[in-house]
Amino acid sequence: MSELGDALRFANDTADEAGRVALKHFRQALDVESKADDSPVTLADRAVEALMRDRIMARFPGHGIFGEEQAPLRPDSDHLWVVDPIDGTKSYVTGNPLFGGLMALLKDGAPCLGQIDMPALGERWCGVEGQATTLNGRPCRTSTCTDPAEAFAYTTDPMLFSGADSEVLEMLRRSVRMLRFGGDCYAYALLASGHCDLVLETGLQPYDYLPLVQVIRGAGGVITDWQGQALGVGSAGEVLAAATPELHAAMLDRIARLRAGQAA
Amino acid sequence: MSELGDALRFANDTADEAGRVALKHFRQALDVESKADDSPVTLADRAVEALMRDRIMARFPGHGIFGEEQAPLRPDSDHLWVVDPIDGTKSYVTGNPLFGGLMALLKDGAPCLGQIDMPALGERWCGVEGQATTLNGRPCRTSTCTDPAEAFAYTTDPMLFSGADSEVLEMLRRSVRMLRFGGDCYAYALLASGHCDLVLETGLQPYDYLPLVQVIRGAGGVITDWQGQALGVGSAGEVLAAATPELHAAMLDRIARLRAGQAA
Repeated sequence: MSELGDALRFANDTADEAGRVALKHFRQALDVESKADDSPVTLADRAVEALMRDRIMARFPGHGIFGEEQAPLRPDSDHLWVVDPIDGTKSYVTGNPLFGGLMALLKDGAPCLGQIDMPALGERWCGVEGQATTLNGRPCRTSTCTDPAEAFAYTTDPMLFSGADSEVLEMLRRSVRMLRFGGDCYAYALLASGHCDLVLETGLQPYDYLPLVQVIRGAGGVITDWQGQALGVGSAGEVLAAATPELHAAMLDRIARLRAGQAA
Repeated sequence: MSELGDALRFANDTADEAGRVALKHFRQALDVESKADDSPVTLADRAVEALMRDRIMARFPGHGIFGEEQAPLRPDSDHLWVVDPIDGTKSYVTGNPLFGGLMALLKDGAPCLGQIDMPALGERWCGVEGQATTLNGRPCRTSTCTDPAEAFAYTTDPMLFSGADSEVLEMLRRSVRMLRFGGDCYAYALLASGHCDLVLETGLQPYDYLPLVQVIRGAGGVITDWQGQALGVGSAGEVLAAATPELHAAMLDRIARLRAGQAA
């Protein structure tokens, strides 16, 4: 089996186990702590990341790990797993099934495998370099939308667009046909399946966005930062994902013009 | 069977059928039109409301009907059904399972029965005057949260808080432990089951909020407009729902003080 095929099989087995742990604690009373950024962190979050890390260290002892809860392990490794045990913790702690487990594998800094697993919905998207993205094993595609005025767009949290970024949010709202809030990783999954057309966000962490990259690319979409640069561990946390290159370019251009105007 | 028991049985049968129609069109290519307010209206929306109306007219020929899509029928009837075929149309048209079918029965203007049905999630909340609210037939209760600083809150769309209301949104954000966006009717369902504690919204229509009233009340929560008045067909579309009377009173007070400051 190829290296990537092996990694995908491993990611699927890991997601099976991780999802069971996440569901075991879902809608149960939990000690929800407050982190500095006020995002709720649950016992489940930690249990799932520990499970993911243990499995990775056992199966790929030479690889690095970058996750939400624990300190990075060999972050400069040429093979780096990036994991988010429960993306959408606000959903998770409020009994809302729109939370997901995220895993990515980076080779020399570039994502070559990504997975969005939605345990409470029974849906899993997998993207592997050079292959079509799948939803529960069946290939999926982004929409053919090229015009922002026709686009159904998502962004998770308007409060993340602070300062000058609030104008980017307003530009987004004015540009698109429909803007829905909330969603976290699920917005990108819906994009990969052609149900929405655009996701624009800021304030994301590497474990939030790196697992999305191959899911979007393998479905025919484009995902970069707000300058059109490839996403990596060191990106600024600004993410633009679009169903088509044309739609992506149109939104990049609007962001660039807006920022040029702000700088002038 | 009592009148309300009969109405509940009817509402359940209707939701079974309505949910099947909604799911038949879900994630299929649809003609999504733009209404004046830019909310997407689908063929499914109309088909489901037509089904609800046909069933009501056949079973309760003397009752009135107030729905989203068609003109009101006998809106001054002492028995008035209020229906929203697909609440959360932004979710529906983007393949997101967080859409619901809503039905309420009003007697002399006051909601005595309410139902939130989530076809894609297989979850249904029913509230009937004088009875405990149920989720899929099992009683559910709101949380015991009394302090805004401990509350998990939802509001669907920050863009609905325009003008002076933007300060209400900012007050909400500062008051609570966590604020999640998106959700529509599902936020109130999660409140009824004790998973979140507070929902604060504006810009809602009678068919959005009247079906929620008995679901929240029968679970131990409180739901009114922003002045603490009971919700009716003529309410302004401002809704405050809370897990406990104490939490509700605390938020009412903050809204009142904010508005007094604005008026001064």
